[in-house]
Order: sequence, then C-alpha cells, then structure tokens
Amino acid sequence: MDILKELEEFRRKDIPYSRVLGSMCTVPHPIAIKAHKMFIETNLGDPGIFRGTRELEEKLVKLLGEILHHPNAKGYVCSGGTEANIQAIRSFRNLRRSDKPNIVVPKSAHFSFDKIGDLLCVEVRKAELDEEYRVDPASVESLIDDRTVGIVGIAGTTELGQVDPIEELSKIAIEYGIDLHVDAAFGGLVIPFMDKITKFDFELEGVSSITVDPHKMGMATIPAGGILFRDERYLKALEVMTPYLTSRSQWTLTGTRPGTGVASAYAVLRYLGFEGMGKIVKRCLRMTEIVKEEMEALGFEPVIEPIMNIVCFKTEHAEKIKEELMKRDWIISTISNPKAIRLVIMPHVTEEVISNFISEIKDVLKIIDVRPQ
Amino acid sequence: MDILKELEEFRRKDIPYSRVLGSMCTVPHPIAIKAHKMFIETNLGDPGIFRGTRELEEKLVKLLGEILHHPNAKGYVCSGGTEANIQAIRSFRNLRRSDKPNIVVPKSAHFSFDKIGDLLCVEVRKAELDEEYRVDPASVESLIDDRTVGIVGIAGTTELGQVDPIEELSKIAIEYGIDLHVDAAFGGLVIPFMDKITKFDFELEGVSSITVDPHKMGMATIPAGGILFRDERYLKALEVMTPYLTSRSQWTLTGTRPGTGVASAYAVLRYLGFEGMGKIVKRCLRMTEIVKEEMEALGFEPVIEPIMNIVCFKTEHAEKIKEELMKRDWIISTISNPKAIRLVIMPHVTEEVISNFISEIKDVLKIIDVRPQ
Repeated sequence: MDILKELEEFRRKDIPYSRVLGSMCTVPHPIAIKAHKMFIETNLGDPGIFRGTRELEEKLVKLLGEILHHPNAKGYVCSGGTEANIQAIRSFRNLRRSDKPNIVVPKSAHFSFDKIGDLLCVEVRKAELDEEYRVDPASVESLIDDRTVGIVGIAGTTELGQVDPIEELSKIAIEYGIDLHVDAAFGGLVIPFMDKITKFDFELEGVSSITVDPHKMGMATIPAGGILFRDERYLKALEVMTPYLTSRSQWTLTGTRPGTGVASAYAVLRYLGFEGMGKIVKRCLRMTEIVKEEMEALGFEPVIEPIMNIVCFKTEHAEKIKEELMKRDWIISTISNPKAIRLVIMPHVTEEVISNFISEIKDVLKIIDVRPQ
Repeated sequence: MDILKELEEFRRKDIPYSRVLGSMCTVPHPIAIKAHKMFIETNLGDPGIFRGTRELEEKLVKLLGEILHHPNAKGYVCSGGTEANIQAIRSFRNLRRSDKPNIVVPKSAHFSFDKIGDLLCVEVRKAELDEEYRVDPASVESLIDDRTVGIVGIAGTTELGQVDPIEELSKIAIEYGIDLHVDAAFGGLVIPFMDKITKFDFELEGVSSITVDPHKMGMATIPAGGILFRDERYLKALEVMTPYLTSRSQWTLTGTRPGTGVASAYAVLRYLGFEGMGKIVKRCLRMTEIVKEEMEALGFEPVIEPIMNIVCFKTEHAEKIKEELMKRDWIISTISNPKAIRLVIMPHVTEEVISNFISEIKDVLKIIDVRPQ
C-alpha cells in the first residue's frame, strides 16, 4: 500500500528512543501496546456507549488512588500533565470565586503553569527555591494573600527531578485553608516505588489533588495522563451539562477522549504489579547512577545528587553540546539556571544505550574542544 | 495472558458501533487503524525527536487547509473539537485584550462553549435561531459590543446538522472588525464533499479560524481534532516558551501529544482522496434519506429536512424511546428544543444497521404504546 510506505518514510525520520535521553516519555511497555490495540475505537467521551471502557477507567483511577494513598480519590484519565494541572487549578479557582485569583507555584514549576495563568486568567506567583532547588516554604507563604486560590508543589521537577517539601506545603495549605495541588506527573509513578520514600501524596492531609501521568514512568501509550482529587467536590466544580450524549454532564476538559491510554496504563500496572514497577524504577535509578559516574569521569559535576532518574550536569557549553549531539541524532536537553545539560534516564535507557551515548559525548567534547566547565 | 483477557471482558461490555446511531464518532477506516499502529509511540509534544511525525502533521494541516480553501492555513492536530474551540477563542481573546471579554455564539452551539466561557473567563452570549435553527445574523449583531472578542458560526450543528449563514456572519465580522470562528468539527469533512456546497470556510474573508475533526467524519482514530487559523498571528497569541524541549515554544493546549491521529487522518484522506471521501459522504446522506423515509412511515416527522447525515424526529416521548432502546443496547440521543430523538448516520450505519434499528424501534413503540407525536 503506497500510503503506508509513505508513512513509514516519515516515521523513519523520527529519532528512535534508543538515542533519546531528553524525554520523560518512553517506549510503551509491550503489554501497553497490546492493550492499546484492543481499545483503538473506544471513546470515553460517550460513556454510555463505552460502558466497559468507562468501568475500566474507574478501576484505573482506583489503582492510581491506591498507589497515592487514597483509594477513594476521584478523577479521570486525561490527555496528560498539562490538562491535569489545568483542571486542578480551574477547580480551585471555581471553588473560591476570587475576584483577581492567584496561585503560588515553585519557580521550578513546569511551563504548563504559564499556559494555565493565561488560559484561566489566574496570576501565577513564583516562589523561590532553596540551594537544592526545592521550593522554599517561607517564600510560598509570603506570596499567599486573600486572592490565592491554591498553591502548588512538585514531586519530580521537570528540570532536576527534585521533590518539593510537600509535607511543609501541606501544613501551609491547612493553615491558610487553601488547596494544595501536587504536580507528580513524573514522580507519581516513581516515588512510591523507591526505597527511600518522601511523603508527597494524599497521605498528607493538605493535598487536594495530584497530577500523575501513566504515559511517563507508567510506560502507557500516549495519551494517558491522570488527575486525581481528594473528593468529588473538585470534579463538580468543573462540570458542564452535556445534552445529546449518553451522560448528563462532563467534567473533563476534552469531549471525545480515547480509551487506549486507560487500557494501556491499567495493563502495565496490573501486569507488573507493585513489585514489577519497583524493579523498573530501581533499574532506572541504577542506570542514572551509572550515567552520573561516567559523566563525572569525564569531568562533569551534577547540579544536585539525582533524586530520581533525572540528572543534570553543569556546563557553560550546554547548548553547544546539545546541538552537536543533535547533529548526530542524539537527543538530550538543557536547563538554563544553572547552565547544564539534562539527562532523563527512562526505562529505554539501557547500559548499551548509555555506553553508546558516553562514547558519542566524548567525541562531541573533542570537537567543541573545551572542558565541561 | 490474564490481563488481556480481563481487558477483553471490559471491552465486550462496550456497545458495538453497529448499534450506535447517536454518536459523531465511528469505526475508524481500516487504513486509519494501520497508520495508527505505526505511530503508537510517537509524541508530537517533542517535535525535535519526532521530526518525521511533525512533518506529517504539517502535510495534514496543508491537506485540511486545501479542503477548506486555504492551503496556507496555520494550525495543528489536537485532542478534538473542544480543544480546537478553546484555542480559537483563547487566541481571539489574547489578541484583543478586552477588559471583560465576551463572545457571541449561536444558541445551537456545542456545550464546549459553556466550558470555554468558564475556562477562559469569557462571557458567552447566545444569539437566537431562525425557524430552521440557523443563527439569526440580526441577533448576533445586536449582541456585539466593544468587549466582543469574536463571534462563532457553526457548520454542522451537533443537534441538527444545520449550517449557520456563515456568509452573513463573515460580513458582520468584517464590518465590526472582529474575528469569526467556524465550528465545523462535524461539517468540515462533510460539506466540501456534498453536491450542494454552502460557503462556510476560509473562502469567506471574515473567517479567522475553523475547527475540523478528522476523528468524526474523517474516520481517523481518536484523538484527531484540528484547529486551523488564517495566519500565524493567531497561533503566536497562544505561545508559551518551552525550556527543556527540542522546540523553543509551544502553542498547543496539551504538551505531550500523540502522533497517531495525524497518521490515521492523513492516511484516510490520502487513501480515499476527494472522490473517495465524496462517495462515503454521499452514502451517508443516502442512508439518512432512507432512515427518514422509514421513520416517516412510522409516523415521525423530522424537525428539519436533514442538511447532512443527522436527522431528528419530533416526539414528546423522546427520553422514553431513548431509554427503551438503551435497555436493548441500542444508542440514540435526544434533543430538548423541540423534544425529539436524534440520529447520526455515520459511515458504520449501513442498510442492515438501519433495518435492524427500525425493527427495534417498532418494538419499542409497541411497548410504550403511544404514537410518536
């Protein structure tokens, strides 16, 4: 078939994940692909038609809730972290009905919060970080006023994989009587499976909502994001009526909504179980350690000791290194404060990938003819 | 594999499309499924990694632009009609920076505009319809004021498949110097392939943006929505900066974004071509005519003569009929003004489906023991 051949040609221009150390997405787990294929024609936007898929979504939400210490959490599977963050802030805003609403987020918050500020007409105030790039609770507190509809903490920052002091943020949320959203798009399926667990989820009383993306470390197919709320009140604040559908109302941001991510996320979590997820997470952490050592041997210094499977290395030549690697079809990313290259060690980053990457970066360093720092 | 069996059980509870006459989605075209499978792991949120998929998206946008009389339209493939409508109104709002912005939409507008009002802090003013359920341009005009950031017309209303007088709305938009968005989520891939073509797209000078969903009549896999703008200025108004990605900025609403819909939509349009699409659209219109005649034979009267492949029949017992059919695993929908049952005759609605449906509805009518009106 001519068209499929044409599509293959486009697909071939994509960089394979075996050369990607700069994305929070990964090759879906084989069971995710199988599950996905079974649900290709499903549409959760019409739950009266796709009754089984809808039931499965409820089971997945419960499963995610269990992982995050609140099996009765209410939520749904969405397009990803951005939608989840939008919906959390929108719910907080709608519940408070403040005149000129604001939210307080860490300076390290994902750029989706800038989108959210614009979208929802909410002022986004950015709190300072400590020297380990965690948000400073005192700074958060100083930015709260009568018009603050919510505060945000991050469990797995996009840049460094750092975890904010959610326990302290939770106390602040309770003290001021405002909602706390935890953006655990990345960390939500990493932290629960680590040996050293930091409290970050519904276990903390002040946490009202959590973003957790199965299409990141959950190895589900895209799109499979998750937004979980402590109770249904938050979903109700998002509700619009839906004539001509099999449901009466809808609290999702999108209307038509694929069931593929629900099926693939559920399949992975059930197939691997807590233990299997733990093995994969720990392997990623081990690989991160290997990368760190290899990079240190080349003279690089990490920005912080990696907390999870993300590691950044200081260098004035970050952009140059990224570009040179890109010319060779290797993908990494950079951060700007401090200037550093950023590596995300997802499940597809095996020892072989690392060894190929290290030899490539050695070549690049020769070419740009500078020491890392 | 146990988990896949479990998933199959859930999937079996879904109603098959052969019993669905109440959805604007349909069974994806076989070529769409094939294309989809090739792109399962792609992520358009990181276009530097998925370079080929990104190129394909550009080709699809161009193709949609060609169908809508503007090959140079700028846009992207999104999660569906709701995101597309959000982005159009958000762009209009951002370009105008009005203090208390409002938009004017037809009373027949999709419920996503209520979501949009809430989301974007924009007042949604609803214009009256004429007796054929098209928006009344005089009513639209009367609702415009200094704070109006845009007006909306619909090409294929969700309830009746009616087409607003976009030509007149275009004149109003030009006269008042405001933007006109056309929600052609459904009609955008129907009207261009009909014998009697109404002007509704970029051919009309006042049209600034169009929603067109390949996952509806384009028979692509979900999610495959489309938002097209007349020029890049509108996209720029949506831009946020994106550190740590392979791109510098992003104008999409979501971050991570599957390439599957791009591939499947492109495959269908290229595989069928203009002629092939025309054949399918015309078959749907023919089937709609058959349904209409069969229903008229049962004593039903259509709310309006069907414009495209949607037809509604007046009855006080609409809800009851829908419920009784639902008990028998048949899905239709209803509208409330006037009270009517609503049938959408998508490509999966064959003569066999119609004949099964008609015999089922005959049984239902016996049970509820009333005449349709």
